[in-house]
Amino acid sequence: MSKFLSDKYSNLSPYVPGEQPKERKYIKLNTNESPFPPSKKAVKYSAAAAKRLMLYPDPDQRELTAAVAKNLGVKIENVLLTNGSDEILNFAFMAYCDKDTPAIFPDITYGFYKVFAEINNVSYKEIPLKEDLTLDINDYIGQKGTVFIANPNAPTGIPIPLSDIEKLLNSDRERVVVIDEAYVDFGGESAVSLIEKYDNLLVTQTFSKSRSMAGARLGFGVAGKEIISDLNAVKYSTNPYNVNRTTAAAGLGAIEDKKYFEKNCKAIIETREWASVELENLGFTLTPSKTNFIFAKTDLIGGAELYKKLKEKGVLVRHFTNPIISDYNRITVGSRVEMQTLITTIKEILEEQK
Amino acid sequence: MSKFLSDKYSNLSPYVPGEQPKERKYIKLNTNESPFPPSKKAVKYSAAAAKRLMLYPDPDQRELTAAVAKNLGVKIENVLLTNGSDEILNFAFMAYCDKDTPAIFPDITYGFYKVFAEINNVSYKEIPLKEDLTLDINDYIGQKGTVFIANPNAPTGIPIPLSDIEKLLNSDRERVVVIDEAYVDFGGESAVSLIEKYDNLLVTQTFSKSRSMAGARLGFGVAGKEIISDLNAVKYSTNPYNVNRTTAAAGLGAIEDKKYFEKNCKAIIETREWASVELENLGFTLTPSKTNFIFAKTDLIGGAELYKKLKEKGVLVRHFTNPIISDYNRITVGSRVEMQTLITTIKEILEEQK
Repeated sequence: MSKFLSDKYSNLSPYVPGEQPKERKYIKLNTNESPFPPSKKAVKYSAAAAKRLMLYPDPDQRELTAAVAKNLGVKIENVLLTNGSDEILNFAFMAYCDKDTPAIFPDITYGFYKVFAEINNVSYKEIPLKEDLTLDINDYIGQKGTVFIANPNAPTGIPIPLSDIEKLLNSDRERVVVIDEAYVDFGGESAVSLIEKYDNLLVTQTFSKSRSMAGARLGFGVAGKEIISDLNAVKYSTNPYNVNRTTAAAGLGAIEDKKYFEKNCKAIIETREWASVELENLGFTLTPSKTNFIFAKTDLIGGAELYKKLKEKGVLVRHFTNPIISDYNRITVGSRVEMQTLITTIKEILEEQK
Repeated sequence: MSKFLSDKYSNLSPYVPGEQPKERKYIKLNTNESPFPPSKKAVKYSAAAAKRLMLYPDPDQRELTAAVAKNLGVKIENVLLTNGSDEILNFAFMAYCDKDTPAIFPDITYGFYKVFAEINNVSYKEIPLKEDLTLDINDYIGQKGTVFIANPNAPTGIPIPLSDIEKLLNSDRERVVVIDEAYVDFGGESAVSLIEKYDNLLVTQTFSKSRSMAGARLGFGVAGKEIISDLNAVKYSTNPYNVNRTTAAAGLGAIEDKKYFEKNCKAIIETREWASVELENLGFTLTPSKTNFIFAKTDLIGGAELYKKLKEKGVLVRHFTNPIISDYNRITVGSRVEMQTLITTIKEILEEQK
């Protein structure tokens, strides 16, 4: 840090993305990427768009916004596209949190919420999950502030029912509730259907996981038109051209290729269920994940130890040092072959333990 | 705006990008885009990268950062790539301005500086240009705060010499000076050579104009390693994957294709000089632009009137309503053919005036 950095950031702890090692080839099950390539249509559209890079993208992204809105069954004024769903989440922290309005989120959830609060200099309150890592919606009722809930939650993978979200929305119509649905396409229940009824709801989604576009940075928010209008004002005050031409083109291809999207989600869910049974047979306890990752622990080996041994054997998973979840590892659901290798490797490690 | 929006943004005036009308085909000389397509190498690399969009980009962007650093003759630790140069400018407002450290910039300059100050809730001071629209560096000496200077300036196109920048840097080594070089490749003098000597200097550049990549969103900052480290902390607290895969690939292609870059810059400069003489022959007064745009006025027709009539005839230029410069229009230097059409169209308009 330089001597010039503003004091407001003297305690900043930036987000730490999952490792992307270059020194050797790993089976990468640590950053929740899709094992499937992007839709051929996405690749084709993106390549065509590259020829027109000399022109700014449409800052309103009318074509893609209309396609996303149509796909969700909402109006164009209910959707705002962003540079990954991280950007719409950051916009929500900017727009709906301040010194009088803290951010409220679970103690175990997407690690970026805390960082967004810090970078925006707003206070935040972490609400503990229950001992079984589930979320009790009653813990959020009566709390003053803007609520951020990942549904399904990360890194636990556990969803909450829409009835819980509706209960929360109803409990205080004067505060914003943000539901982060990065993983919703793998078996969760989307709250998009509630945006017409609740003007205090913002739902965020991403093309990163279920549409195999983590490398493109495309996410979006869905809400009543007034919330979208606020977030648009923030967008036009930070990054008007936030979605670049090749990404927008890829996004359109991905939306148009609905069959491929559905096929991939189905494959991930099937592989998750298969791998979950295999892990349980090896003595693991799993959270009931509805995402593209598995969150697993076992009494046979510590979480950090398993992470380390898997890495030595060429399989990367993600381990978190927070003591509440340090027994666990978060394992991205890769291809069937990758998951077979994971299971075989874990078997080896457990054998070596004996 | 919704009732939920934080009070801190109640007076927010978002940036207004140049219009991108869809209703008819225009000769677009209003947003300083390049008339030339991106390098074929950029297009090829981008298209290849689209096939790997399922994987996150390298958050550190090691390969492209090394290429940019090498091209500038600096070290990798002196460069930070961003989502357009707007992002690095915003990071600088975040990192180096606060309630005690205002932002200082000219009253006539890139319109986004004021918006960045507002979105970050920092105060700012606008220093008037001289009557001839030149900048007197002495006006900035002794001012407390972080200085933002576009060199060459926009929308005037007028550069300041490096000796002025060095004088400013020397006058107060305890404050940061940001030199925004979005247009430097068209005849300006870059301050990158000063970063080794001055740890309070941040230089920003972009691939948007001279490398025909406005649609890709790629910019960067160059500074001493401590400033880059600050800005990296801000990046990892807002947008770790800020440069997507296809953009990074295109950027690498553009850097490798140095001949094409140089040829295009030369063509723009020649067309600018040619069009400038033509406009002067028609009775226009021009600022001494060293950019890819011309800033011109005439007693024969008002600035707003000329803008309007050009638009009616299918030529888009940019007019600013600020009374200090409302006599002028900012005209992007397009291709020779486009500029010929511009000149012919202006002749017609002036004829009709008679």
